[in-house]
Amino acid sequence: STNLAPKKIAKYGTCIGGKGDEFKGCSLLIIAWDDRNCSPYQGRNIDLNCMMEPVSTSPLSRIAICGGTHGNEMSGVYLVRELQKQNLEKVGAASITTVISNPRAIAMCKRYTDMDLNRCFTDALLSSPLKDDTPYELRRAQELNALLGPKGSLQAMDLVCDLHNTTANVGLSLITYFNKDWLILHIYRHIQRSITSAPVRLILLDIPYADAYSVDTLGKHSLSFEVGPQPHGVIRADIFNIMKEAVNKTLDWVQCYNSGRAFEGGEVDDVYIHVKSIEYPKDPVTNHITAAIHPQLQDRDFGLLHQGEPMFLTFSGDVLKYEEEEALHPFFVNECAYYEKNIAFHLARKIKITIPTLQVKR
Amino acid sequence: STNLAPKKIAKYGTCIGGKGDEFKGCSLLIIAWDDRNCSPYQGRNIDLNCMMEPVSTSPLSRIAICGGTHGNEMSGVYLVRELQKQNLEKVGAASITTVISNPRAIAMCKRYTDMDLNRCFTDALLSSPLKDDTPYELRRAQELNALLGPKGSLQAMDLVCDLHNTTANVGLSLITYFNKDWLILHIYRHIQRSITSAPVRLILLDIPYADAYSVDTLGKHSLSFEVGPQPHGVIRADIFNIMKEAVNKTLDWVQCYNSGRAFEGGEVDDVYIHVKSIEYPKDPVTNHITAAIHPQLQDRDFGLLHQGEPMFLTFSGDVLKYEEEEALHPFFVNECAYYEKNIAFHLARKIKITIPTLQVKR
Repeated sequence: STNLAPKKIAKYGTCIGGKGDEFKGCSLLIIAWDDRNCSPYQGRNIDLNCMMEPVSTSPLSRIAICGGTHGNEMSGVYLVRELQKQNLEKVGAASITTVISNPRAIAMCKRYTDMDLNRCFTDALLSSPLKDDTPYELRRAQELNALLGPKGSLQAMDLVCDLHNTTANVGLSLITYFNKDWLILHIYRHIQRSITSAPVRLILLDIPYADAYSVDTLGKHSLSFEVGPQPHGVIRADIFNIMKEAVNKTLDWVQCYNSGRAFEGGEVDDVYIHVKSIEYPKDPVTNHITAAIHPQLQDRDFGLLHQGEPMFLTFSGDVLKYEEEEALHPFFVNECAYYEKNIAFHLARKIKITIPTLQVKR
Repeated sequence: STNLAPKKIAKYGTCIGGKGDEFKGCSLLIIAWDDRNCSPYQGRNIDLNCMMEPVSTSPLSRIAICGGTHGNEMSGVYLVRELQKQNLEKVGAASITTVISNPRAIAMCKRYTDMDLNRCFTDALLSSPLKDDTPYELRRAQELNALLGPKGSLQAMDLVCDLHNTTANVGLSLITYFNKDWLILHIYRHIQRSITSAPVRLILLDIPYADAYSVDTLGKHSLSFEVGPQPHGVIRADIFNIMKEAVNKTLDWVQCYNSGRAFEGGEVDDVYIHVKSIEYPKDPVTNHITAAIHPQLQDRDFGLLHQGEPMFLTFSGDVLKYEEEEALHPFFVNECAYYEKNIAFHLARKIKITIPTLQVKR
């Protein structure tokens, strides 16, 4: 998994039809997101179309597809190897670069060797001087920055896609940053509309660009794919096929986009913003966890968790309940890599986004 | 998982109602297993009762329950810790010893550190001299032999139970050696009859006692519990509860047995003998696997795999089929720990066993 930063609280825009700034009890929000025409936008019953002038953006000429950023998430490893075997170098006018991100971790079938590679792409870490004792992954991050970036520069890849797995039952979850990237939202909507073999959702992270830590942020546009459930170290054909389809649909979209097709604006469904993270209960003496995810929550990623519903079942048989007033959507429920951070699952708020019509800039 | 030795071919007894010695096309066999009264037993239409004189065996006074023999199989780790927290020391007349088998691997959340602990309990390895460079697990195996054995001696524990998980969809699978241990077969039948939350099956391994390699062989009676599917490094409440129930039912049985109850003989269902192992197809140049378990086989452990049915789906989309004439039962399908041995799954033959009435020796 891409492993979100814990305990970020997201609070954006203005709630329409909800209860205003606090969002309490509001599981579906519409966020005014374009501030060019309508900001500061604070009214209700707004005509959303007023914000939605068509947008033109640059062509996507150079695309990178990365697998094995986490060395035990096998779908991306095998998919990138397969693309390399097929010598996939061009899709329409776009060049394709395939990257095995963390070969040393893959060889050991571990998430990482010294530190989590997918936390190394902040401006600070990318510019830190290399020393003899620089961790392998930080060294590798700077290599990848030279290959796919430099991050934030004109020479950077137009789009970097990074392929991940999770032990959580998330289906196909796309992750990007909360940065008004209409193009990424169009790609997401295309994938969501064309893939039926798994539920498709989008997770938005609110992290300033300089602090955004994942390899996909090397590109001008960033997109991570999370597919699950799959045990780390294991390859399942069903999960592999979902990832393959997602990459194919992305490349289809890029080809249509580059060839000049206009993509109509409108609403985008199943978009989630990360609100906070829930920790495992622990024994203060041994520091061991004292409970597992409750069976009623296990495998129910993106459902709605209401006050009073079970979260954990302790090893002695007690039920621990969710006590917050606001119902939220759990995701990355029981992800293997989060045990070392003591995170049991994340919680998200569901939002609705309206996007403008998009066409390549000629 | 306990990780069976690959490519053992089991061929036992005489097929009744099947096609004789070859077992071809025979998925259900009755094996004559008791040679005291009826051997050499080669007839057909035999009256099975002739073999089934009641049997008396010694009380079970000292029982060991081991978890964390593989350091990333979490159900046993947390269950043993929970039993220790509850200070479970006695069940009726039997003393209970709880053991965390591989603490160093658990701390690293790995299967093992230097070598697979659950392959170290052969006579040869247990008697090998310790040196400075002796692997940690071999050292630990000799410690456990002193604590729970010595293997094959009168001082050994009466029963050693070892707790495992697998990423394969095996439900609750008990594993023991093919050694006419009526007592273990009675425990299995009791568990199978009383647990409804998962399918319960028994796997028999044909390995001479001196070469039997798993920690449970330190006991006079040996039993491994495999519960799945659960990703390694993850704890699922549903899987934990199945394991907890299996251990509780075992201890219930022991208490009844020690108190003198006679357990009626009869047929035992869902017993499988390991026949052979199937390897992943590999690229001869890169040595990478070229296919995943086919979706029609994934999660279908203990179903029947017929000639012509799909086994693998290659990463380029081709289907590889099972070509053998004899239909067999796949198990440990896509177990994570088997990738390093290149084993995709094992195949078993289903047998029926008749067991005698059993009572404790007074």
